[in-house]
Formats: sequence, C-alpha cells, structure tokens
Amino acid sequence: MIRAAIMGATGYAGGELIRILLGHPEVEITALASRQFAGRSIDNAFPSFRGLLKITCETPDPKVIATKADVVFTAVPHGTAMEAVPVLLEEGKKVIDISADFRLKNRAVYEEWYIPHTAPHLLEEAVYGLPELYRETIASANLIANPGCYPTAVILGAAPLVRHGWVKGDALIADAKSGTSGAGRSSKQSFSFCEVNEALRAYSVPRHRHLPEMEQVLADIAGGKFSVTFVPHLIPIDRGILATLYIDLVRPTSSDELLEVYHRSYQNEPFVRVLPPDCLSDVAMVRGSNFCDISLCVDQPSNRAIVLSAIDNLVKGAAGSAVQNMNIQFGLPERSGLESVPLFP
Amino acid sequence: MIRAAIMGATGYAGGELIRILLGHPEVEITALASRQFAGRSIDNAFPSFRGLLKITCETPDPKVIATKADVVFTAVPHGTAMEAVPVLLEEGKKVIDISADFRLKNRAVYEEWYIPHTAPHLLEEAVYGLPELYRETIASANLIANPGCYPTAVILGAAPLVRHGWVKGDALIADAKSGTSGAGRSSKQSFSFCEVNEALRAYSVPRHRHLPEMEQVLADIAGGKFSVTFVPHLIPIDRGILATLYIDLVRPTSSDELLEVYHRSYQNEPFVRVLPPDCLSDVAMVRGSNFCDISLCVDQPSNRAIVLSAIDNLVKGAAGSAVQNMNIQFGLPERSGLESVPLFP
Amino acid sequence: MIRAAIMGATGYAGGELIRILLGHPEVEITALASRQFAGRSIDNAFPSFRGLLKITCETPDPKVIATKADVVFTAVPHGTAMEAVPVLLEEGKKVIDISADFRLKNRAVYEEWYIPHTAPHLLEEAVYGLPELYRETIASANLIANPGCYPTAVILGAAPLVRHGWVKGDALIADAKSGTSGAGRSSKQSFSFCEVNEALRAYSVPRHRHLPEMEQVLADIAGGKFSVTFVPHLIPIDRGILATLYIDLVRPTSSDELLEVYHRSYQNEPFVRVLPPDCLSDVAMVRGSNFCDISLCVDQPSNRAIVLSAIDNLVKGAAGSAVQNMNIQFGLPERSGLESVPLFP
Amino acid sequence: MIRAAIMGATGYAGGELIRILLGHPEVEITALASRQFAGRSIDNAFPSFRGLLKITCETPDPKVIATKADVVFTAVPHGTAMEAVPVLLEEGKKVIDISADFRLKNRAVYEEWYIPHTAPHLLEEAVYGLPELYRETIASANLIANPGCYPTAVILGAAPLVRHGWVKGDALIADAKSGTSGAGRSSKQSFSFCEVNEALRAYSVPRHRHLPEMEQVLADIAGGKFSVTFVPHLIPIDRGILATLYIDLVRPTSSDELLEVYHRSYQNEPFVRVLPPDCLSDVAMVRGSNFCDISLCVDQPSNRAIVLSAIDNLVKGAAGSAVQNMNIQFGLPERSGLESVPLFP
Repeated sequence: MIRAAIMGATGYAGGELIRILLGHPEVEITALASRQFAGRSIDNAFPSFRGLLKITCETPDPKVIATKADVVFTAVPHGTAMEAVPVLLEEGKKVIDISADFRLKNRAVYEEWYIPHTAPHLLEEAVYGLPELYRETIASANLIANPGCYPTAVILGAAPLVRHGWVKGDALIADAKSGTSGAGRSSKQSFSFCEVNEALRAYSVPRHRHLPEMEQVLADIAGGKFSVTFVPHLIPIDRGILATLYIDLVRPTSSDELLEVYHRSYQNEPFVRVLPPDCLSDVAMVRGSNFCDISLCVDQPSNRAIVLSAIDNLVKGAAGSAVQNMNIQFGLPERSGLESVPLFP
Repeated sequence: MIRAAIMGATGYAGGELIRILLGHPEVEITALASRQFAGRSIDNAFPSFRGLLKITCETPDPKVIATKADVVFTAVPHGTAMEAVPVLLEEGKKVIDISADFRLKNRAVYEEWYIPHTAPHLLEEAVYGLPELYRETIASANLIANPGCYPTAVILGAAPLVRHGWVKGDALIADAKSGTSGAGRSSKQSFSFCEVNEALRAYSVPRHRHLPEMEQVLADIAGGKFSVTFVPHLIPIDRGILATLYIDLVRPTSSDELLEVYHRSYQNEPFVRVLPPDCLSDVAMVRGSNFCDISLCVDQPSNRAIVLSAIDNLVKGAAGSAVQNMNIQFGLPERSGLESVPLFP
Repeated sequence: MIRAAIMGATGYAGGELIRILLGHPEVEITALASRQFAGRSIDNAFPSFRGLLKITCETPDPKVIATKADVVFTAVPHGTAMEAVPVLLEEGKKVIDISADFRLKNRAVYEEWYIPHTAPHLLEEAVYGLPELYRETIASANLIANPGCYPTAVILGAAPLVRHGWVKGDALIADAKSGTSGAGRSSKQSFSFCEVNEALRAYSVPRHRHLPEMEQVLADIAGGKFSVTFVPHLIPIDRGILATLYIDLVRPTSSDELLEVYHRSYQNEPFVRVLPPDCLSDVAMVRGSNFCDISLCVDQPSNRAIVLSAIDNLVKGAAGSAVQNMNIQFGLPERSGLESVPLFP
Repeated sequence: MIRAAIMGATGYAGGELIRILLGHPEVEITALASRQFAGRSIDNAFPSFRGLLKITCETPDPKVIATKADVVFTAVPHGTAMEAVPVLLEEGKKVIDISADFRLKNRAVYEEWYIPHTAPHLLEEAVYGLPELYRETIASANLIANPGCYPTAVILGAAPLVRHGWVKGDALIADAKSGTSGAGRSSKQSFSFCEVNEALRAYSVPRHRHLPEMEQVLADIAGGKFSVTFVPHLIPIDRGILATLYIDLVRPTSSDELLEVYHRSYQNEPFVRVLPPDCLSDVAMVRGSNFCDISLCVDQPSNRAIVLSAIDNLVKGAAGSAVQNMNIQFGLPERSGLESVPLFP
C-alpha cells in the first residue's frame, strides 16, 4: 500500500482527495494536516466522512508529515506550498502540489501574477501534471505541479487544434463558467449563499491568474507564442467548469473534420470523452467523476470552432487529476481509484 | 415628507428598507449609517441601487443621525441597538428597532438568551410591532420593537386559534424553514454558498433565540402561559420562511370550521391572505411582498390543526413590517410603500 | 386610464406584465386570455396575485379581446401571434407583440428560422421595440415587435461600438447565459428542476433563433452587414441574462475611451446603467427591474473589447420593455410603472 | 457474477441503480428496459454513463427480461410493477420492486390509497425491504418490496423509540423535507425549474401515500396500532430527505439516555450513523451514499424527542437500499457496491 498524506486536508480539494483515496485500492491515508482543524478529528471538518476514516488532523509540519507518507498532496494556498514542498522533496517524498506555486516555468511571470517565489530552483524540475500532454515526464517526476481547474478545461478543449496547427493567429477566446467550489472553502462575504445564488457575473476581467498558465502550456504545444482572452464567470452551482472556446481556424473546416481530429487525439485517453454531434457538454454529466467531456462544432459563417469543455473542477480540475498523476508516478493503472461514475442528478 | 434614516444600512434588512422606502410616496431617505461602508456610496454595498439614490454612508452616531431624520430604523445587531436607541429617543425621534433588543418584556429572560441589557428601562415602553395584534398601541409608540422573522410567521399562523382558546394544552410545535438571508449578510464559512446549497439541516435545536419571543406573545394572547417546541431549518433559497405548525385542538373540528375562524380573524388585514382549501402556502408567492399567506387543514385522526404560514423574511419578517409600523405611527395609510406585487418566478 | 389586455396571460411573460401593470398609475388591466386557464381565476395560475386582481381568464379570441382594451399585449408562442395580431390591428388597437412573429423584416429569413408566415404584410409596418434605438418610430407605431431577450442584452451591449464604426470586421462573439424562465413556463423534462439545477450547458449551438434578429438590428445600426457568433447557455437561476461580448476593435483603444463612448451613448437613457470600472455587471443587481447594466474593458494584448450586459430577461427582456414601449406609444412618461427597485438578494 | 436487469432504467431510481451496480464487484448489468428510450442507447437517457456501459434499452417485456437476468429491479410506476412482477417470479427470478405495489400488506388499504390491485396474492409473500428491521426474512425472499423514501427516513428515525415502548400515545409527527428527485424524472409543469427553485411549500397535506406505509411498519414494531401526522415539503435541492420527528415520550428522559438507545440499536448497522450531540443531520453529508444519519435531543419543557433523520432519497431511499437487499438475498457482503463516500460539496 502507498502511504499518502494530505496537507490542507480540510479545504474542498483536500476533502475531495480524501473521498477519492478512500476508494483507492492501493492507497492508505496516513496523515492529514490542517491549520484550522489541528487536533480535531477530520469528521469535524467533513461530517460526511464519519465512520469511514479515523484520523486526527495535525499541525502542518512537512518534516513530520514526510515521516508518515510516501506521497504528499499539498492542497494549500499558493505561498504556503512553496514553503512545504522543498522540505518534502528533501525528505525524498513524491509531491503533488495542487497550489499554483510550481505551475509557471518562468519565475518572473510567477512573481508578476502572484508573490515573490522562495523556491524558484524547483520551477524547472516541477512537471506540469496534465497526463494527456505530459504522461511520460510525469512518470518520472518527484514534483508534480497539478494544473489549475480553468487551464485543465481550456487546454484539453484546445490542444488537438493547437497541436495540429489549425488555430489562426495562435490565439483563442475562453469564456469559462465555474461552480463556486472553485473559490475554495471560503468565508468571504462575496461567496456567501445569498451573494452567489440567483446571481451571475464575471470576475477578474481581463486578467485572471490562470491566464499565464494556459498561455504557457498552449505555447508549449504550439511551439511558439499563444495568447488567450480569458473571462471567468461565477455560477451558482457547487461543482463544475464549462469552458466555451472560440477558435478561429486557418482554413475552412467542417464540424465532422474537427470531430475526427478530437476523436483521434483522445481515443486512448481514459478520462476524455469526445461527445457525438447531437450531444453538448454539461457539467452535470461529469459531476464527481474524473471525466472531461468535450463537444464541438464549426460556426460556418465565421469559420470559427466552438468547443465546449466540461469538467468537475474538484476532480479532473484538482483532486482527481492529482490521483491520476500519482497513479502514473507509482506505476499503477491510471484508472485506479478514479472509476466512480458521475452522480446525476 | 417624513425624513427617514437607517442605521445598519448595508445589511440585508437595511438594504430592504432602502428598497421599500425608495417606493414610499411620503418618505425621503435622508441618512444611512454603516460601520463597514462609512465614507462610501451606498452603491458600493448594493450596486442594485445605482442611479436611484445618492447617499454616502456615514459612521453610525445616533446623535448625528437624529439631527437628520424624523424616524430612525435600527437594523443593527442586538447589543448595538441598545446603545443607539436611548440616544435617538432622547432626541425625540421615533425609533423602529429591527434587532432583538427590545422585544422581550422581561429583562431576565432577555439576559438568559442574549447578553446583559444596558437599557432595561425601555423594555416596558417598547411596543411589539406586530400590527395584526397591537395596532392601537403601535400608533402612539415612540419605540417599536420590530418582531423577529420566525415569530412573525409562527404568531400570525397560530393567533386565531390561541385567541379563541382552541389550543389544547397551551402549546404547539413549530417546524420552520428559512431562506439564508435570515442569517444576515454573513461572512461565516457555514453560510458560504457550497455549505448551504444542496444542503438541508436544522440548527439551534432545541433552543433558538426566537423561542422566548414567540412564547411571550402567544402567552399574551392566550392570557396565560404558552409553550412552543421550535425547530428552525436552513433552506438553500434567498428569501422566505415557511412555518409548519402542529396544534392539538381542544375538541373535534373540521377544516372548514378552522378556515372560517382564520377568514374572520384576518378579513380586515391588508397583508394576511388566508388561502382557499386547495391552495397551500408557498414562499415563492410572497417573495418581495409584505404578505403573510396562511393555509391550513385538520388532520382528522389526530384532531390536530396543520397550519402553513409563509412570509418573505426580509419584508413581512423585517423591513416591510417596519414600514407598516412606521405608517401606523405617522398616521399614513397602512399600505403606503408596501403595494409591490410578489415577484414570481 | 388606458385599458390593457394580455393574451397569453398565464405564461411567465404574461405574469410579469400583470405584475408591472398592477403598479402602473395610468393603466387598468381589463382582460386576460389563456387557453390553459380559460374560465378560471388568474389566481389559479399565479397564487402570487391573490387579492390584487379579480379577473377570470377567457378563451383567447382577439375580436372579443379587442372590445375590452386600448392596447393588447400578445405574450403567446410564435405562430399564435401572427393569427391574433392582424385581427387586433383591424379593430384599431395598439398591439405589442412579445412573440418573435414580427421581429424579422425579411419574410424569407423568418421562414428559414421559424415557420411559414401568415401575415407577412405586417412585417414592414411592425416597429422593432427597442426604445434606445427606435424611440421615435415606436411613438407612432400601431404594432410593436417587442425584442427577444438575448437580442436586447446583446444589442444594447454592442450598439455604441457598432454605431461609432469601431468594430473590426463587422462581427462579434456573444457568449450569453440565461436563467431558466427564458425557456417559458415549460413542462418539458429537460427544464425540470433536477435537469437544470447543478447543471451548466450550452444549447442551440451554433444556430439559435435569436441570431438573425441580432444580426438584422446590428446591421441596421452598422449600415451594412453584421455577423454574430452566438452561443447561449442555460443557467440554474430563475431570471437574468448576462451576455459577454467579445468585439475586436479597429484601432488601439483604452478602457477609458470605451467607457466614455458608452457613457455618452446612454447618458439620457432611463434604463441603461453604464457601470464604473471597478464594478462588473451582475444579473442579481437588475432582478425585477427594467435596467440593463453594462460594464466593459479592453483586453489590451488582443485589442478586444469585453462587454458585459445584464438584464432581467422577464423585464427589460420582455414585459418591462413592452410597458416601456406602451408608455412611448401613449405619450406617457417612459418610467411609468417601471420604477420598481431591483430585488436583492 | 450475478446478472441484473432493470425495468424502468431511465428514471432517476433506474439511473441510480445503474450507477451503483456499475461499481458492484459481483454484478453485471445485462438488460435495461425503458418504454421511452426503447431501441436507443442508455447514453441517450444518461449522458453521464457514456463510455461506461454499452447497452441498448429494450421494450419492457418481463418474459424476455427474465431470460437475461438472475435478479430484476422494477423501478417503474405503481400499477406497472404489479403487471410485471408476477411474470418475473413465475420465471423463477428474484425481484426487487421499487414501486409501491407490494409494500402494503392489506389489499384494501392499498386500494384506498392507490388503484385496484391485480396481483393481491403476492402481498403476503412480499417482504418489506428495510434490512435494519427485516434482515432475516429478506435473506430468503423472492420478492422484495423496497421501502418508500419517506418511510425509510421516518421509520429508521423512530424505530428505536417505538421498539422500546417509549412513545407516548403510539403516535408521532413527521415533518419531512425532500429534494425534487423524489418526484421522479418528471415533465410536470409544477416540477419545472422555475416553479421549484426559490420556492418552499408543503404538498399532499394531510394525506400523502407514504403515510399508510409508515403506519403499517411502525405498528408492526410497536406490536399494535401506530399513527403518524405526516407533512412532506418540496425543497429546491436535487437529492435528500430530512425528516424531523416530534415524538412525545412516556416518561422524562434526557438527551443522553435517548442517544444511548440509538447507539445501541444501530451499533451493528453498516449504513446508519448516529451522530454525536454537537452534530445535526444534514442531507449534504449523505449525498450519493447509502447512509442514514440520525441526530436527536429531548426538548425538556415538553419532554418530546426531536429526531432528525437524513438520507439520500435516491440511494438509501431507493436504489441503494435495493442493492443492499440484493446483497442480503444473494449472500453477499452487505456493503458490496455501496461503499461510495458521500460527495460533498
């Protein structure tokens, strides 16, 4: 059994890691760290786990955590991760970081969008944990930078076109809609029930922190520069991201041709489902699962591809992809622990 | 024009007072106080008011507020109200207090459920602002203790039976369900969107602070003691309280007899609607309005009345009844400013 | 008093017309027609109106309706409207049609997107009822084609740029999100609660029926052709449309310049609010009101305007703009009956 | 492998059975029947299952279905089940009926609340499938009458007190709140999104069809008569029932004593969790799982137990308990296929 620890166990991504790992046949959860719930049973943070897991949360101390685990998931805020991760690596642990701290290769870009980086030497070593693009390097990585939720939806939706060089102007528009769990387990007034329910608004326009991450990865695929106009919106649902991509095509293309490219690109991927023409992606159909559902068509008058990419932001957008990365790192079947069927309704 | 000020203008009850008073033909809003938004336009707290009201929030100082208004609504937390109200009364202002500070007649009971009282001399003077019961005394009162949202729904639902002496054992069960705005404009994690949405739970069982208030008023009507078993539940909607009352009857009674009693009790009330037998109260049908919708029947096997009482907790349960009280105090038509039609859907 | 009748009174747009007209100082509702509720009180369709309006719904017969009203609102499905409207006009009534039947000037275009047209002779006479663009012609029109909800949000969001010739390529992308009342008072399984709640999906991609309507009006403003890529999404809220527009600009432009254009364009409009730079449009802030809230910025790297346009689809997107049109037709103050303050939360 | 078929596969209970059985290590789904989707892939009814299950729905014919399965789940409307079940039993199949057709022992009572019964000879043979009460008889039953969702929550919440003879007057009040999936996969207007969202209402007061079922089972436990006052409410959430029970006690009892009784009653039950005193049942904490969470206290002034019982109506209230019953019938570990962790948020 692989011994797994979670730092930041009582946020939504942490809770989702617990939920998934409880069903993983090769993993045992051996330690949970949480500043807020230190000294208290995990049941206090998540009554849903009552009777399923008997662990008391401990104060986050990476040295101590390292003694108890083979792999550590850091589901902590950016800034906090860059403190803990170097210690965990020094202790010889595999680390899967769910924060943003190791996603950007360029320190200056990181510091422009976030804060000064205290572990910049690890930026190069870290592997961007999107298995559909980087499976081989993930297999041998010690430090995985788990992708952001929006970048996951956008990149998986765009990658086949970008890779084939079908994108006019090396640019796209991503209009993304996210459920509220994407904001974390928050106590901000602006995420309180009555401020989100029956509301509908964009935020962080036009510069959201996930933008440089998308552009970096799409540029890597394109083999050059790539730019994105990105507008995220907050939706009154718990889980799910739907990214609607508008991509100008280099030459006249039919919806069928496009669909064929996507089918070929993802035919061996266990968690990407390319939908038939009469079926549009819906976050309700991936809830609780590690699937990314992609549907698409060409708007003929503008010769523009419209791609709809749906994920559960807490699973494929966070904890699920983290476990998928762990499976790859440890040589396990990639689907292990990730076979749960979407919960609908 | 009556000059009205609101202390606590940027909470939900304060915002609702603004909304209602903006449509009141005899009232001008002259001052808004808010600790959190002092120095900033009310638009910052409620973008919905943009273009409708040009007022900068000021630091709450009852002496200053008193110079600007004929009537002051105190929509502040309990404890804060008891500091401001005596000052406002000394300055000769009418005060309508939406907090709990002046609702309980008995200081000891208040202090058992809340905190030490610093203005106990006003407890007797304060008039409980439920017009359906106390219209005459409201008319001449300087200090109105505006009823709590749950007590409003429960008392209006039970009063006809209690007054007629039809209640067995001078007791009832009130199973109440409330929308989340009843918790105030909160930044507590437990009221954040993902903790409330798709959830359903009771709270403060079996002793919620609105219990002694209900029991006091029902005892007053009964002319003796009256006890309530009260269980409030949190529902993932913005607005609305539905109170389901279970009341054992002193003698076999038909649903028609019961309905007749309610029709007679409320026939002259502008804001209580007794529904026909085939129509059950729904909070969606009173949203945004000052109505209390009551439906009922008798469960024959148990000879128990089932009464369903629905209000909008921010209107009839707070700001609307406050304006109704103001209308009575100032001799205005009781419906003034309160004619807005329920918003459905 | 103007006597107003509503055909299709028991759908959501019909109910919203009733709600608004009940508060209109110059209008009396004299007749309500509904196939489904003929012979029954309007309370049966909308318990919210209990006590406010005593009208029995009648079978829809335009000849009969015409005898009872000065103005008739036809809030019926497309196809049904084109049968009733010619009769009402022959009887000398003003007609405000909320269906799609008279919005498209070109019969062939209408028939491509809808069904064969049985009253094509009225297409030219009908005036597109968007006051911000066509106020003068509305004033003298007998037949108003009330705009669709999506076109209202998109056209108001784009018009200032289109009119100024700042739009590159005479084209834009409109990513729109709508509350579920936009689908009408439906009994389709796909709009049942559990299929919409916690879900998020696009529909009618890439050809929704509101597309030719937008293109027609924007072309009219542009003085040439104009094309739109339009993707509507269904959101689990009752009311509200947020349209996110992506508009390539002809020359480098700052957000401030853009804002200045919008402020000037809409400075005299009673129902369009251009928001300050730090405030983004939110449907929650226009709920129940006739406002259209517009916020915007320029995405510098792409020199693309991002415009966010929010309306209540049942008010500014249907019943509210219909009443605004009626006010113009009858020479009343444009705000009459439309002063209700947004309901938040 | 046990071969399982589902009749009524495309409703919510049918879909939930598929979801659960896909994760069951000892079961293979071999046939799905659906009138509405006959001839089409199950993906059409539930896009969530894409890639997980390749089965075409067939016309419901119990003779044909019987040839393909060892156990048949009938998740069809009442009335339909009583036609299919006798055929399936004649073919020697185990049947788990999720409809109401075989729950009531007394034919006259069934016919009073439902319709004439065409297979009354099976009423005695059918075993009420609540494992916590009838595990032994379930083990040897050929026909399981799977309990209704409300009765499951109410009976599990009340059983320990009823069995111990602590209930005064052999009666209780059950105020129940249900998510909307309890109404089935409906196309009724009253269950459309805008009619349920932001609404809150009771229904079927005071005589809901689940009432005689509760009374029958509680009477069986009590060893005499038992009566229930039952008021169900519709809540705008997808899944979950919270039943709030008010139970008068025969003698003064403390909350601790009560808790002790429940702990003892359920200590060996794999799916009933009795919560500690500081934790109240919440449907969000059982979502997607087979748990029933029970919390309780005594209201001292009235000496009345308040019991809060929460289940996922589609799992413990339908498909989950059906699988639990199948496990018992086939001698499998009771938890097989039912270990999925609650999904929160």
